[in-house]
Amino acid sequence: MNRSWWGWGTTDRALPDAECVALASMLPGLPDRPRAVPRIEDLSLPPSRIGPTGLWVSTAPDVRAAHAFGKAYRDVVRALAGDLSGAPDAVALPRTEAEVVDLLDWAARGGVPVVPFGGGSSVVGGVEYRGGGPWVSMDLTALARVLEVDPVGRAARIQGGALGPVLEDQLRPSGLTLRHFPQSFEFSTLGGWLATRAGGHYATLHTHIDDLVESLRVVTPVGISESWRLPGSGAGPSPDRLFLGSEGTLGVITEAWMRLQDRPRFKASASVTFADMTSAMSAVRAISQAGLHPANCRLLDAGEAALSGAAAAPVLVLGVESAVLPVESRLTELTDIAREHGGAVSTGEAGKDAAAEAWRSTFLRMPYVRDGLARMSAIVETFETACTWDRAAELYETVRAEVGAVVEEVTGTPGLVTCRFTHVYPDGPAPYFTVIAAGRPGDEVRMWDDVKTASMAILGRLGATITHHHAVGRDHRPGYDRQRPEPFAAALRAAKAALDPAGVLNPGVLIGPV
Amino acid sequence: MNRSWWGWGTTDRALPDAECVALASMLPGLPDRPRAVPRIEDLSLPPSRIGPTGLWVSTAPDVRAAHAFGKAYRDVVRALAGDLSGAPDAVALPRTEAEVVDLLDWAARGGVPVVPFGGGSSVVGGVEYRGGGPWVSMDLTALARVLEVDPVGRAARIQGGALGPVLEDQLRPSGLTLRHFPQSFEFSTLGGWLATRAGGHYATLHTHIDDLVESLRVVTPVGISESWRLPGSGAGPSPDRLFLGSEGTLGVITEAWMRLQDRPRFKASASVTFADMTSAMSAVRAISQAGLHPANCRLLDAGEAALSGAAAAPVLVLGVESAVLPVESRLTELTDIAREHGGAVSTGEAGKDAAAEAWRSTFLRMPYVRDGLARMSAIVETFETACTWDRAAELYETVRAEVGAVVEEVTGTPGLVTCRFTHVYPDGPAPYFTVIAAGRPGDEVRMWDDVKTASMAILGRLGATITHHHAVGRDHRPGYDRQRPEPFAAALRAAKAALDPAGVLNPGVLIGPV
Repeated sequence: MNRSWWGWGTTDRALPDAECVALASMLPGLPDRPRAVPRIEDLSLPPSRIGPTGLWVSTAPDVRAAHAFGKAYRDVVRALAGDLSGAPDAVALPRTEAEVVDLLDWAARGGVPVVPFGGGSSVVGGVEYRGGGPWVSMDLTALARVLEVDPVGRAARIQGGALGPVLEDQLRPSGLTLRHFPQSFEFSTLGGWLATRAGGHYATLHTHIDDLVESLRVVTPVGISESWRLPGSGAGPSPDRLFLGSEGTLGVITEAWMRLQDRPRFKASASVTFADMTSAMSAVRAISQAGLHPANCRLLDAGEAALSGAAAAPVLVLGVESAVLPVESRLTELTDIAREHGGAVSTGEAGKDAAAEAWRSTFLRMPYVRDGLARMSAIVETFETACTWDRAAELYETVRAEVGAVVEEVTGTPGLVTCRFTHVYPDGPAPYFTVIAAGRPGDEVRMWDDVKTASMAILGRLGATITHHHAVGRDHRPGYDRQRPEPFAAALRAAKAALDPAGVLNPGVLIGPV
Repeated sequence: MNRSWWGWGTTDRALPDAECVALASMLPGLPDRPRAVPRIEDLSLPPSRIGPTGLWVSTAPDVRAAHAFGKAYRDVVRALAGDLSGAPDAVALPRTEAEVVDLLDWAARGGVPVVPFGGGSSVVGGVEYRGGGPWVSMDLTALARVLEVDPVGRAARIQGGALGPVLEDQLRPSGLTLRHFPQSFEFSTLGGWLATRAGGHYATLHTHIDDLVESLRVVTPVGISESWRLPGSGAGPSPDRLFLGSEGTLGVITEAWMRLQDRPRFKASASVTFADMTSAMSAVRAISQAGLHPANCRLLDAGEAALSGAAAAPVLVLGVESAVLPVESRLTELTDIAREHGGAVSTGEAGKDAAAEAWRSTFLRMPYVRDGLARMSAIVETFETACTWDRAAELYETVRAEVGAVVEEVTGTPGLVTCRFTHVYPDGPAPYFTVIAAGRPGDEVRMWDDVKTASMAILGRLGATITHHHAVGRDHRPGYDRQRPEPFAAALRAAKAALDPAGVLNPGVLIGPV
């Protein structure tokens, strides 16, 4: 497996040039060939401004380049343009927690910003630094072990730098699984999930990684914070909840006890087609409020369904799983509700549903498609939110209309704005929007930034969150600052000053100037 | 309804003297008649040290006396002894949020401690002040309105001072319900539940009030913090989770948008008897890990079952409810698991189970029984915790043995130590212990404090939380301070200093000298 330094995932899955060209034919006015992928050795990296540290640090060009960006669309475009001007001066590669402590001590003494880096899959500018001075990226993927498994309480103590497959491989002999499968599963770490409150594959109930946490161990510049393994507690504000979502600003999550599941023995899925989004949304709302907690409950609007190869009508993908009991009757309960709201149900045999499988494979391939289109100067990006059901229809219509208008204004041609609900709650859905439009070579980042600025303002106006599970990073700061209650911001700044008095941890994320 | 100033609940439900005497016969060496309940007019209240405030404040003796204590055993004993030396100098009775703001401004200017008071049912010393100087209790029960109901997203905006029945009465016309039923339901408020992370009647899944929160509005001394109504969000650390469990130290929760349920149409319950706690615990663990989420899943040990009038063997009370679908098949799934672990199942007809009903009625009557026994100089108190399953059996045995030994040492005679699991999680139970022993008149508080000190040390040694849902208050500070990670404590102190710079909000709770 060879990780791509400029784009998503692994180099072997990047789209061939011919496929990039074919894809681009759906948009008018794009170039007739893809932009070449630059080689790191042909690019000029600014010289490292950090001298010998005596610590486990690399200044090799390929290592610095691979830690220069996250994996947002704007990151991919900047990488394709060969712009490594913001690359870290050095990359720390701690092999032990003690080395994390040493690195933070060194950084605090010298006032050098440190940006924790897990899998580097941030799509919100969470793993770069925009302050201009020397900085260090701290890659935590060497801390990747499952240290302990408790088969009775079904939990494991896992190091924060473990990538999804790395931790699942180690859990497999126990028969247990974390079952947290974000789209970035292969290329993101447990610590990254926790620091960003990642969303997993469960569409209802335990949607965020937050719900799977038993305790955390966090290296802060003033000491190690370790909470107790507790299934539940009412002792003051939750210590873990302060670090969940702290995005590397308060400390580095080196270990967590995580709640595990037995591997599911029974699975069933179905897809349900609707005539329109109104009836589809009413079905999803009824399902989310029925207390049935399906593992999958993802609604694709007509545009999204068409992109994933299904019919051009809203499709709801339902899935149920259990390690204990057959699930057919539960699936029937769900599809019955969907039918009552006008859905046409299709279930495959043996628990396999063709539309569900197609969606899953499209889902995992999507970032590679994005990179292929980016090489063709298309604009391809997503943003996600959540709102209450009473506002869901208005949000869906308004975002499509207004973001669509901005896309046309910015790019000069109409684009696509599609939507799916990735997670749903009894009180509202988490809509996830995809924007696809023709960009102009060299102008893509500015164009996208204009669309993004407008979309943040629209979400804020509608009272919808700036992010459901992509995190805040640097790119979402305008929306986050608008959304966050000011007294809470004061409390968070004070907590930050107490834990990171030198202000070296991921400056610009959540707190302070970007 | 006439609230008792000295004991639990309402005066009409206090046990008659004859019943107190009858109950006391189960313990050797107690007096032959109950201590008289003093009349407030016969007691000497220290003169109020607070002059005219120009605010909505009362210094009437009965009002001050009713706000002098919470409702812990040690509070009841102190009240029965007529000790009102620690009563508040005044009780603020704000009728609007603006009056809450005014009161906090006044307190901050004068450096006068303010202790928020909901229903006053704290059993951890959460609503008194031990600093010695003048202080004000702020009774919030005039802020008791349901301001808005959203039937689509199933949520309501409710003022923090609404007692359980007061808010449920207002929700009833909508067909919706909060369904949060702590033992204190009648005598505690929404704001109190939120500030203390109260545990409700759901024994699994949504056990704490935390899970039912959509957004909070909190008056802090530096401004009002209001989070957005969101079904889910990943934007930084959760603002609400900082205030949940803050026990009045960071602000006063004046409003919350709470997630509601449809009223259940289908209910079923069963009780399951086990030969011993080992098999009972294995059944409860299997149920909690099966993903079935029963509404009720409470395990009484033999002693607890005997106290509640059932057979002297471990009994598991199971309940299922749904607003949408019949629940008999779900109950069968649960009882099947219980049977596999050696349980003998008894289900009543028409969804009514006699043991379950008996338990519920005993549950609600228990605090009145406690007060009756307290008048007989018995020691009757509870403490609760949570731990992971791998430690549950050891915790159960150790606490019973070691606390039992301490009780005998302190009181000179053996006492009862019984246990129930009030809430259970896939990774562990929340055991709730009851201690009943013969005290000596005039010495009960010291005796109980000795037992409590020992029990806190035992829980700490076993890595079990100092409280699952009773909160920290002042009484749990030794255990809480041991349990809380020091960097988190530093962050919380910093947040407190940012939000309450004058340090007037509930000093001694969670933070600072008791």
